[in-house]
Amino acid sequence: MFTERVYNFSAGPSMLPVPVLERAAGEIKNHNGSGMSAMEMSHRSKAYQEIFDETKALFRQILSVPDSHEILFMQGGATGQFAAVAMNLIGATGKADYAVTGNFSGLAAKEAKKYGQIHIAADTSAQNHTRIPRQEELALSQDAAYFHYCANNTIYGTEWDYTPQAPCPVVADMSSNILSKSVDVAGHGLIYAGVQKNMAPAGMAAVIIDKSLAGRELPFTPTILSYKTMIDKDSMYNTPPTFNIYMLGLVLQWVKEQGGVRGMEALREERAGLLYDFLDNSRLFKGCAERAARSKMNVTFRTGDPDLDAKFVKEAASRGFVSLGGHRIVGGMRASIYNAMPVEGVRKLVDFMAKFEAENKI
Amino acid sequence: MFTERVYNFSAGPSMLPVPVLERAAGEIKNHNGSGMSAMEMSHRSKAYQEIFDETKALFRQILSVPDSHEILFMQGGATGQFAAVAMNLIGATGKADYAVTGNFSGLAAKEAKKYGQIHIAADTSAQNHTRIPRQEELALSQDAAYFHYCANNTIYGTEWDYTPQAPCPVVADMSSNILSKSVDVAGHGLIYAGVQKNMAPAGMAAVIIDKSLAGRELPFTPTILSYKTMIDKDSMYNTPPTFNIYMLGLVLQWVKEQGGVRGMEALREERAGLLYDFLDNSRLFKGCAERAARSKMNVTFRTGDPDLDAKFVKEAASRGFVSLGGHRIVGGMRASIYNAMPVEGVRKLVDFMAKFEAENKI
Repeated sequence: MFTERVYNFSAGPSMLPVPVLERAAGEIKNHNGSGMSAMEMSHRSKAYQEIFDETKALFRQILSVPDSHEILFMQGGATGQFAAVAMNLIGATGKADYAVTGNFSGLAAKEAKKYGQIHIAADTSAQNHTRIPRQEELALSQDAAYFHYCANNTIYGTEWDYTPQAPCPVVADMSSNILSKSVDVAGHGLIYAGVQKNMAPAGMAAVIIDKSLAGRELPFTPTILSYKTMIDKDSMYNTPPTFNIYMLGLVLQWVKEQGGVRGMEALREERAGLLYDFLDNSRLFKGCAERAARSKMNVTFRTGDPDLDAKFVKEAASRGFVSLGGHRIVGGMRASIYNAMPVEGVRKLVDFMAKFEAENKI
Repeated sequence: MFTERVYNFSAGPSMLPVPVLERAAGEIKNHNGSGMSAMEMSHRSKAYQEIFDETKALFRQILSVPDSHEILFMQGGATGQFAAVAMNLIGATGKADYAVTGNFSGLAAKEAKKYGQIHIAADTSAQNHTRIPRQEELALSQDAAYFHYCANNTIYGTEWDYTPQAPCPVVADMSSNILSKSVDVAGHGLIYAGVQKNMAPAGMAAVIIDKSLAGRELPFTPTILSYKTMIDKDSMYNTPPTFNIYMLGLVLQWVKEQGGVRGMEALREERAGLLYDFLDNSRLFKGCAERAARSKMNVTFRTGDPDLDAKFVKEAASRGFVSLGGHRIVGGMRASIYNAMPVEGVRKLVDFMAKFEAENKI
């Protein structure tokens, strides 16, 4: 039982900024003189439309989304987008290229196989996904409708440090690193991200799509996954996840107050620097990912002894550093240090790790 | 600008019980000693699993869901279910029967046509959807995989007062009347409901499915819409809309405290009785639906003069009776009086309508 806030290192859903939570609580019975909560408003009301428009405009501004691209808020999370991307885009040639650099990019490729011919342009599974392929290693097809990659691999703790180039539209799953650094949006035909890590409560994906790519969906595409319909109806063909959009708006305002993506990037460098510096000097803990591929959002590490790993995770939790266990398919530890994680939280975690190391000499 | 809560007659998203909002606000930074909000918890954590399990158990208890049926929480709302129902169930024979008694049942039938042969078993559009077909009027096929109807028509203000029988599984969209009265769950192969009217913030559908119907989905069904996968993974194949489920849990506890569906049914009778009694005695306002088909959730009415309707909606809003405009495709007025609408709100609305009638003699 904690009477204070913990440092929550969960990979997602994850921490939200305290000022955002406080504002949401403060206006939960009466948002802006409307006499109701944002979550009680008709999505067709003027009051809600204002929330929606402001959120979308802020998202466009903060990520510098060009006019060529539309911003969509869709239900179904990133997993819904695994299907949506293929159903909407693969029709151009019937084929698509996928880079498999972790669990979710593998699942995305598997889902896409329902809708066309999938070519694996890169696969790092032989290296247990500890690295990211370089541009020259990508075996790209000449007739792919799109090339798909996952910009940050939450489970393995790796992150692409460049935007891959391809002779077709590039599609990125940025679920776990969106809003943490500047993005070359124009270099992508489509970017999508489940919101539950850096943006808002779980239950939505944000999609940034080059409008020229929409309108060629397979005939059996469910309407809720049709980019064309969502563009035409400004994400309101059906009732959108209104509270998630509202919360995204509050988070975006907070991001803007912290200096936008530049501010977030400085913070992510600081957090990740603290943790990786410690790991590089530790005799107990070892980072899992190759140095060049290290994620600045999900830091994976282990002692090499599963029992000691378990002891660490348990002791850490009792001190208020929670959800540090690695994903069940890899074990070890993982510290997810998204935008809302204070630098202070990482500093204190590192202190605790040093103490644990001193107490558990090998 | 309202300094107090208004009476929100929106068709959805709509009012939530004040004690639910207050509790959500009170634990938004620390849920039950976890040191975090329910919306910040990993969906794989013990703390969140408890919320999930309690919510599901309460839902089963309150709606008396038999063991033959599973309860699912899925993203995409009812519109997502329009596709999911067909993709998962139509494979049995390739055909399905639909009763079209309003806008959304028409959209459900249209979406299903992507996946098989749709037979319209009833269509009340010639009567402008002011009535509900009787059992003997349903032109049911002998080889339909399922029969689909919409139990309450939000836009037209009509409601089925019986559970239709069919020689195949019966599928109901109960988005706008679920939890407001007892339901013959065993009489349905599948029930689904968008949560944003009687249950929780928008962004989710609750599904009650006879487990024996799952597992025959069309090969191109997106995983997020696969009932089989959602049953096997207890609605957590991917990250579920964790906050919506948490809020549903709070609403269900509130429903239970009010006497469950019996309590809700008594309240709905009282609210609807007040409003329809007034309409039946008014010389200005007229109810739109046939008496036998009247919805006890969405009361549609009009003066017959669109300008006077607009004047009424505007004046009502200024007094704190908001979102009384009818849906844009029908005009007039609509008072949505879901579970969270206090009887007092309807009483005050009726008083205001009487006053408006006196001031606007015809």
